[in-house]
Amino acid sequence: MRAAVIHGERDIRVEEVPDPVLATGPGSSGRDAIVKVVASCVCGSDLWLYRGIEPTERPHRIGHEFVGVVEAVGDSVENVTVGDFVIAPFSISDNTCFNCRNGVTGQCLHGGLWGVGTKEEGFADAGQGERVRVPLADGTLVVVPGGNPDPALIPSLLSLSDVMATGHHAAVSAGVQEGSTVAVVGDGAVGLCAVIAAKRLGASRIVAMSRHQSRQKLATEFGATDIVPERGEDGIARLKEMFDGIGPDAVLECVGTKESMDQALSSTRPGGQVGFVGVPHGELPVGQMFGTNVGVRGGIAPVRAYLDDLLPDVLNGRIEPGKVFDSEVSLADIVDAYKAMDERSAIKVLIRP
Amino acid sequence: MRAAVIHGERDIRVEEVPDPVLATGPGSSGRDAIVKVVASCVCGSDLWLYRGIEPTERPHRIGHEFVGVVEAVGDSVENVTVGDFVIAPFSISDNTCFNCRNGVTGQCLHGGLWGVGTKEEGFADAGQGERVRVPLADGTLVVVPGGNPDPALIPSLLSLSDVMATGHHAAVSAGVQEGSTVAVVGDGAVGLCAVIAAKRLGASRIVAMSRHQSRQKLATEFGATDIVPERGEDGIARLKEMFDGIGPDAVLECVGTKESMDQALSSTRPGGQVGFVGVPHGELPVGQMFGTNVGVRGGIAPVRAYLDDLLPDVLNGRIEPGKVFDSEVSLADIVDAYKAMDERSAIKVLIRP
Repeated sequence: MRAAVIHGERDIRVEEVPDPVLATGPGSSGRDAIVKVVASCVCGSDLWLYRGIEPTERPHRIGHEFVGVVEAVGDSVENVTVGDFVIAPFSISDNTCFNCRNGVTGQCLHGGLWGVGTKEEGFADAGQGERVRVPLADGTLVVVPGGNPDPALIPSLLSLSDVMATGHHAAVSAGVQEGSTVAVVGDGAVGLCAVIAAKRLGASRIVAMSRHQSRQKLATEFGATDIVPERGEDGIARLKEMFDGIGPDAVLECVGTKESMDQALSSTRPGGQVGFVGVPHGELPVGQMFGTNVGVRGGIAPVRAYLDDLLPDVLNGRIEPGKVFDSEVSLADIVDAYKAMDERSAIKVLIRP
Repeated sequence: MRAAVIHGERDIRVEEVPDPVLATGPGSSGRDAIVKVVASCVCGSDLWLYRGIEPTERPHRIGHEFVGVVEAVGDSVENVTVGDFVIAPFSISDNTCFNCRNGVTGQCLHGGLWGVGTKEEGFADAGQGERVRVPLADGTLVVVPGGNPDPALIPSLLSLSDVMATGHHAAVSAGVQEGSTVAVVGDGAVGLCAVIAAKRLGASRIVAMSRHQSRQKLATEFGATDIVPERGEDGIARLKEMFDGIGPDAVLECVGTKESMDQALSSTRPGGQVGFVGVPHGELPVGQMFGTNVGVRGGIAPVRAYLDDLLPDVLNGRIEPGKVFDSEVSLADIVDAYKAMDERSAIKVLIRP
């Protein structure tokens, strides 16, 4: 089969790789599944490798967001059947350990990552390819009820593997609830999904911090009530001015730079909360947090734990996060997807194997 | 009248100072009150000045925890009457501004601090003295219903001015609720009150981190189910071992050193929450927080906002935070109170003017 393999900075190649097989024999747990990928995509975090910010020590497969159809299951798999259309969250989890039961499936005690695998179950393929061996299939995969979905729904279902669930995590971590005032820092796919999440949770006012017209437009379509193009000190001042001189209740940090976190922390009203999902850089000024009582909470989104809540709203059309995909390429042209994401000429690129 | 005045490192003196008077005349708002102090005490944060960690630029009055009887009120005061027995929270607030309405009275937009005063209302006396001019009396003071309280209740009422409300803030900030598992870092008066607060909020298991027998005993009396004397890496390992290998739901940081915060952050289970009320030093490792989804929230306790909830439980005897006072001196001997607190030979010293 073919799959994307990263070799180093700006060096992504589509190569022939071995077909995945179910683990068998005495050492295997019989808990894996083979999924034929229907759609995958490139994540902002894949760009760190692409840009060489994180080194690629040896060539390896890449991608952790995909949806597809189950082609085979191990002997012990109970919740997933051949033919099921499934969503694969961006982390592998058994959904039964103490952490999973506490709702933090991204910290599953037996879980792992695509392209890396789990300690007990061995290697797992990555998502940017034709097929994937999924370890801990019962815990990891979420079956879309009703058989093969309407093709028009596939982008939104794919967004549930990461960006929609991550945007939701930002909103949940910031404590967004009915009537909250919210600002979203970051107008990438995650930030835009955070706007959807804030609206879905009942926010009364949602400010999208964006200076790109196409993203502003989508943010508004998703529920943003205000657009603020200013950043840094100007952005902070503008937000405070908009909300009684003190700032909004919740700020959703969906970028991950030190500047964006500082901006988020300084624009939240006293006693408010920052929800962060951008992989953070720098440290947090805890003295400032003490003085303002602004809490900070976030991290790796527990995608699996959120899907029971989010999937129905995609299926019934209440939310359409798939609109973040403004471009589509075939696996053969995946280099174009990386380029478009890198140059921010696309918000999010869908990849068909 | 007499009041404690700090002159510099380890130099606290009881001196004759002018009697406080209600502000009058064209510039005054008529919103202050004069309170005759019945009991006050020394705070851990007073020790920073006493120890010279914070410099004393010029001699000034000190103390921000007191209860007393109202002797006079300004023309505009409506909620407080001469003769009322009142609790003074450790910060001054109008209880009407945006921040106060959001429950963060410690960030009152028009508030201030004892010994410093407020921007609009001018100087406020500090609490370690015979009388205090209280600005924004309607917003700041909380009247104890039923007239002069039983003298046995005075220590507990005094604890509501700071330590009990601050311990409660740690528990609330950490999201402690019915069934939570909790560890408390710090066995000072605030840490011990945090044990009371955790129990009061329904925690199913409460670990007090303490290596002092008398404090361990009081913690147990207050509701701690377990005592852990280990600190640092050993303390973290012990807590993880006690709670399914992952740690408790909530850790209440009641010290404020970098070590205690690191310990709190590393011993909370993934997805759990640190509530912090120790004035923090150092910065927070936000990368670690991202990887574990442990939230951090806390700061200056909104004492005024909590008193409507906490005062009834002191009056009906459900909680007895006054037990943290294990020593009592007269104002004339206040130097002994500072010494005892500094040497940790007393948990908390009550001062009678």
